[in-house]
Amino acid sequence: MGAVREALDALALVDHHCHGVVTADLDRPAFESLITEGSRWPGSGVSPFDSPVGVAVRRHCAPLLGLERHAPPEEYLARRAELGWREVHRRLLGAAGTGVYCVDTGYAPDDVTTPAELAGERAAAYEVVRLESVAEAVAARGVEPDGYADAFRAAALEAVGRPGVVAVKSVAAYRTGFALDPDRPGDAEVGQAARRWLARGGRLDDPVLVRHLLWTAVDLGLPLQLHTGFGDSDLRLHRADPALLTDWLHRISGTIPVLLLHCWPYHRQAAYLATVFAHVYLDVGLALHYVGPARASAVLAEALEITPFRKLLYSSDAYGVAEFHLLGAVSFRQGLAALLQERVDADELCLADALRIVTWTGADNSRQVYRFSATS
Amino acid sequence: MGAVREALDALALVDHHCHGVVTADLDRPAFESLITEGSRWPGSGVSPFDSPVGVAVRRHCAPLLGLERHAPPEEYLARRAELGWREVHRRLLGAAGTGVYCVDTGYAPDDVTTPAELAGERAAAYEVVRLESVAEAVAARGVEPDGYADAFRAAALEAVGRPGVVAVKSVAAYRTGFALDPDRPGDAEVGQAARRWLARGGRLDDPVLVRHLLWTAVDLGLPLQLHTGFGDSDLRLHRADPALLTDWLHRISGTIPVLLLHCWPYHRQAAYLATVFAHVYLDVGLALHYVGPARASAVLAEALEITPFRKLLYSSDAYGVAEFHLLGAVSFRQGLAALLQERVDADELCLADALRIVTWTGADNSRQVYRFSATS
Amino acid sequence: MGAVREALDALALVDHHCHGVVTADLDRPAFESLITEGSRWPGSGVSPFDSPVGVAVRRHCAPLLGLERHAPPEEYLARRAELGWREVHRRLLGAAGTGVYCVDTGYAPDDVTTPAELAGERAAAYEVVRLESVAEAVAARGVEPDGYADAFRAAALEAVGRPGVVAVKSVAAYRTGFALDPDRPGDAEVGQAARRWLARGGRLDDPVLVRHLLWTAVDLGLPLQLHTGFGDSDLRLHRADPALLTDWLHRISGTIPVLLLHCWPYHRQAAYLATVFAHVYLDVGLALHYVGPARASAVLAEALEITPFRKLLYSSDAYGVAEFHLLGAVSFRQGLAALLQERVDADELCLADALRIVTWTGADNSRQVYRFSATS
Repeated sequence: MGAVREALDALALVDHHCHGVVTADLDRPAFESLITEGSRWPGSGVSPFDSPVGVAVRRHCAPLLGLERHAPPEEYLARRAELGWREVHRRLLGAAGTGVYCVDTGYAPDDVTTPAELAGERAAAYEVVRLESVAEAVAARGVEPDGYADAFRAAALEAVGRPGVVAVKSVAAYRTGFALDPDRPGDAEVGQAARRWLARGGRLDDPVLVRHLLWTAVDLGLPLQLHTGFGDSDLRLHRADPALLTDWLHRISGTIPVLLLHCWPYHRQAAYLATVFAHVYLDVGLALHYVGPARASAVLAEALEITPFRKLLYSSDAYGVAEFHLLGAVSFRQGLAALLQERVDADELCLADALRIVTWTGADNSRQVYRFSATS
Repeated sequence: MGAVREALDALALVDHHCHGVVTADLDRPAFESLITEGSRWPGSGVSPFDSPVGVAVRRHCAPLLGLERHAPPEEYLARRAELGWREVHRRLLGAAGTGVYCVDTGYAPDDVTTPAELAGERAAAYEVVRLESVAEAVAARGVEPDGYADAFRAAALEAVGRPGVVAVKSVAAYRTGFALDPDRPGDAEVGQAARRWLARGGRLDDPVLVRHLLWTAVDLGLPLQLHTGFGDSDLRLHRADPALLTDWLHRISGTIPVLLLHCWPYHRQAAYLATVFAHVYLDVGLALHYVGPARASAVLAEALEITPFRKLLYSSDAYGVAEFHLLGAVSFRQGLAALLQERVDADELCLADALRIVTWTGADNSRQVYRFSATS
Repeated sequence: MGAVREALDALALVDHHCHGVVTADLDRPAFESLITEGSRWPGSGVSPFDSPVGVAVRRHCAPLLGLERHAPPEEYLARRAELGWREVHRRLLGAAGTGVYCVDTGYAPDDVTTPAELAGERAAAYEVVRLESVAEAVAARGVEPDGYADAFRAAALEAVGRPGVVAVKSVAAYRTGFALDPDRPGDAEVGQAARRWLARGGRLDDPVLVRHLLWTAVDLGLPLQLHTGFGDSDLRLHRADPALLTDWLHRISGTIPVLLLHCWPYHRQAAYLATVFAHVYLDVGLALHYVGPARASAVLAEALEITPFRKLLYSSDAYGVAEFHLLGAVSFRQGLAALLQERVDADELCLADALRIVTWTGADNSRQVYRFSATS
């Protein structure tokens, strides 16, 4: 094993964007529904185990549960049930070697661990507030259209004032996509949009209110995480290309850091934005475990093609199963090590620089963006 | 040679989308015009032989005609003429090792083999009905605008009722692109559009009628092959990005299988769709021989990055020259073997899984989608 | 070292698109501002040295200044200052081994070398006229709206009539992007647009006038270089996708050669255009040095995936610092050699073909497009 891999294996990663783990034992349908971005497809003959991420689970997680590498799905699930979710969680997160988790608490169709439960004894936990969830809670409580803007702002301020909150997040990519008017909407425009939305109900997907949400994020002053690229079938992928945000990124230059999450297959577009804007950062979370350790190096190589080394962050974007928290970390460590070691071996990069890139991307870039305090 | 390559070489491939071979001997201009997606460029100093596909023809086809690898174009064409097209066809298709051909019979600017002639003694042949050709034949026969919808449906039903038909195909990508209204058009809308089109004549490129064609495909109930991505200069490539189809794919969920053909350079977008929709599949046909065996592994690696292994199919999309039916197969076998063997060697994939992926993608996924009967 | 690399190292490259070098010694802020496509970000903690291009400068340029490979930035800049810009220029351009420079003289926010000064004794220099600069000079001199079209044409004709001019260039990608009406605008339309623009002032970014500029380029009859893809924060990257030009490329077929510059991350789209249109060419300049020699092979492999070998050109797109003229050449030589030698070693390509591809892409394709005369 090379020196780069050793450094990566020894590093306590900062996972700057992830979710909790389901607090229940999972039967096969439940587990399979959590290891795909598709819906479950019973009767289709397509099991999520028969995909790159399924192969990676059997290869990298099975040994941690005491099984052979590449154990069959049935055996894997039986052993998982035998150990119980708490022990699986303990083993997999223990092996992930993550030192800090920043947890998006605004998406939980299942009962999942709190940030503190996720992190356990070994790691620190911080919280990321999903602004769409805040807005929808405001609507659910009942608010007059003309009072929506103030009520949303007050609720967001309250949410980010909670101990341990280090960032906000938006899923505008899912709701409207990024081909939005980049200007801050006026009060009257917001009031009218709120009237329409509150009358109609449902999730926040009005373009004016989504813009308003993004500008409210600017006012809050915390780093803003943005879903871009890859996700589930609710996306229109081409509208989640972060290049569509360029006008808005110009407008908000000098205010808050913007963290482009996932990005694949637009990670080169994201790299361009991180290269030209001081306040833009990226990761390839979610893609890391879906492509698996066998392919993570190729994706990271594209993401790092032009990107300043202080601009790439690590995240798993794991949701639901501890397998993904582990696989994100393994993919990152193994993929980045392969790519940097190859350059060191070819004398295109010196070892000292490779080790700095490891520390920066795996931990310090997040520490600089989020300025974690002792609060946890 | 590794075990994966041996399995691929032994496998009778299902080429789920291809065309016939020109039934004539070809002089240099005629041959060159068939090995490029460009028009012929006489006097430009650019020969299609001086491209990746030309290099691949000389490397992989020349030995099958009894020449040295990398034989010069003149020598290759002289030998080809000496053997005659029937013998060239026999040798190259024999070496391709394809067991089943699904042949799009709706595109034949030249005189080409029938599906049965293409397959010969060794392989089975099935037919794919190109719906634009059906619609244009209806118009050519003469039809009243208000009767167009019924006449098209009747003609399509008749076409797919022929023995050996296993799928329909649309080239909507060429005619309008995919940024279409995803909803089924109403009868009056179709009638008006038909009136305009029938008065104007020409090929079917009215957006309402293209939508109507796609929805008629849904009614027919057979798998639908869709050209996406790479093709000739008649494309507007960015409008052939399959991500633009997402709304329509949602609408038709639970009806017919949709096979995204070619996809390059949007194969990651296609992989996303195949990952989140149960009814969506993809291939990288056409790209396989144009990039050649030297690069097929890289393209397949991107196409398979997140794709469930039951969702990738093999096709050559060969048209006109048997060289392409051979090269598609060689690129697929060589490219997939390289990628899977590397993962087996790194213990990221077990050999049993690699062999299942070989059988699935090379043959069984197509068998499951098209449910070939004994009819041939 | 393989035979391909030897051939590439021995070849006098034609750099068909680059800029001059700043004629002054540079302190750290000035040097850093020239080695990034971002603005300078003082206080951000992000130095352009901590990026792939910074690593490449320290690895490949430091030894040419008499330092160890990977020398730290401080040491590098101190040595650079000690030698003075003329000596640095002399050493780096000497090592680049470029035989011909085509220099875009229409962009010079700094005092830079003339084409002849850039080339020095060892190389020939030709000039590329940036049409937006011509148009803006016409406006600055004062012109009546109705006279704008004639005045611009006359000024452009005069500019391209200067000795040594071999091409024109447009930065339409920056000004409007490529989603333009592909038709030639009428006189009245141009007059009205000129009236608006001349009244408003500022740079040429009116869509009608940008179209008019592109059509004027067609009339001039010289090869047209077009910025596409990667550049600074002034871009809207997604509007610089060259596929958006397809309608216009159809319209002008049979007139002038069009050279798509940079292209990354749309180099596959550019490759498609170069494959289907006789008059379209591409390069991956700018990307070559920003990704660095460690990654140039991967980018070139994508750019050459389907591209006819007579259609890829070499350019550095270096601006400001001689480091970039050197790095472009090193990235091209090293990257192309790695990719071709690997194919030769695998017997996918014969050595004679590899050597032809070297000569074509590194020099002869440009010679054929630009038809350099003895004038220099």
